Amino acid sequence: MRIGTVVGNIWATRKEEGLQGLKLLIIQPKNVDGQFSNEQIVAADRIGAGVGDEVILTMGSAAVRSFSTTTICPIDAIVVGIIDGTDEVRGEHSEGSDRHD
Amino acid sequence: MRIGTVVGNIWATRKEEGLQGLKLLIIQPKNVDGQFSNEQIVAADRIGAGVGDEVILTMGSAAVRSFSTTTICPIDAIVVGIIDGTDEVRGEHSEGSDRHD
Amino acid sequence: MRIGTVVGNIWATRKEEGLQGLKLLIIQPKNVDGQFSNEQIVAADRIGAGVGDEVILTMGSAAVRSFSTTTICPIDAIVVGIIDGTDEVRGEHSEGSDRHD
Amino acid sequence: MRIGTVVGNIWATRKEEGLQGLKLLIIQPKNVDGQFSNEQIVAADRIGAGVGDEVILTMGSAAVRSFSTTTICPIDAIVVGIIDGTDEVRGEHSEGSDRHD
Amino acid sequence: MRIGTVVGNIWATRKEEGLQGLKLLIIQPKNVDGQFSNEQIVAADRIGAGVGDEVILTMGSAAVRSFSTTTICPIDAIVVGIIDGTDEVRGEHSEGSDRHD
Repeated sequence: MRIGTVVGNIWATRKEEGLQGLKLLIIQPKNVDGQFSNEQIVAADRIGAGVGDEVILTMGSAAVRSFSTTTICPIDAIVVGIIDGTDEVRGEHSEGSDRHD
Repeated sequence: MRIGTVVGNIWATRKEEGLQGLKLLIIQPKNVDGQFSNEQIVAADRIGAGVGDEVILTMGSAAVRSFSTTTICPIDAIVVGIIDGTDEVRGEHSEGSDRHD
Repeated sequence: MRIGTVVGNIWATRKEEGLQGLKLLIIQPKNVDGQFSNEQIVAADRIGAGVGDEVILTMGSAAVRSFSTTTICPIDAIVVGIIDGTDEVRGEHSEGSDRHD
Repeated sequence: MRIGTVVGNIWATRKEEGLQGLKLLIIQPKNVDGQFSNEQIVAADRIGAGVGDEVILTMGSAAVRSFSTTTICPIDAIVVGIIDGTDEVRGEHSEGSDRHD
Repeated sequence: MRIGTVVGNIWATRKEEGLQGLKLLIIQPKNVDGQFSNEQIVAADRIGAGVGDEVILTMGSAAVRSFSTTTICPIDAIVVGIIDGTDEVRGEHSEGSDRHD
């Protein structure tokens, strides 16, 4: 999954029928050290994420199948979690230490 | 999904049979701040997008399955929406504010 | 889908059984303005594309499933069309004009 | 698959139901020569990887299907192995020598 | 598919059960003109590729499904062929000439 920040909403009146009723958010992915990626990803959300939230983004067909078992939505990214916190130790790897099994 | 602008049509006479009758558009994806990406993506369209339209693009196999339930089209990208508007607040994230649940 | 130019053939004697009898081409994808991408993609072809042809390339599992309904070929890219022409208007978007619905 | 180093844990209280009970790790992928990639990937783990471990990462829908046969988890990356060692010879290729069939 | 060179073996004792018994190789993909990409990909191999071999690499879920019909292996890349030769003509495209239909 990717980590990103919700930067806005997006609306489309003319759309594929399978997109009806879905809330779509614009997400700006974050690279290491909190830098924003140059990309922007549109993702469906049903857990109530809003602008400014840091979220976990799942992409691809498995995500879509999990989203609805009755229909196949024409989407390729969904918000799966709103991040509470992380404990990252980046850039160097202290082998064997600080394990969380 | 990705955001992009329709920059043209594309035609192919010799093609896979599953592509027959599909309208194909060339899309130039947009990165943050409205800058165009260096890529070009060919996508199938059945919602009537045209040159100059800003569109939402769904990629991958889930998109394809949603496009047709009777046959498997040999495509990997479809136009799913013509964008009416967005309310992006980029580059900085104002945590907890401006929520749209 | 991606746009690319066929730059060569590729042969492999020792291979996965599911690759038997497939014609494989090396494709160099094209970015905007006709610039070649730095990548090279190997794709299966059964529509008769040859060196120098500009082609449309479909990638991923949906493409593969459309290629054969009886067996699952271990491939991730196929040539789906030989391009006749395009009418691209790149880099700027003239909203609302020149629609082809 | 990709090679990466576990750099931290990540928590989300508000999340898709299918994510319940999954342990999520932040992975920093490694490019050649041990350089870290600029990306960060969130992956599900059930083999007990911890911060500092070098791991093998599988991405995409096949990985997800292997993770659970009863439900479809909304994930797109899993940790599949904790690396014991490698014997890489990079940058040059000594054809025909040092075969491990 | 991608073209790459096998640069080493990789071992993992603690791993997902579905990885048991699979031989894993580290592949360095090649871009145009034989330049190596900055990435490294771990792929399953059952056709006997070894260090120094130039190989064709298939990625994604279709590849995985072709690898085993009885179980779903948690892998996303497999070696599908050991390259015998290519006849690439890169960088320029001589339209209509040198066809191999």
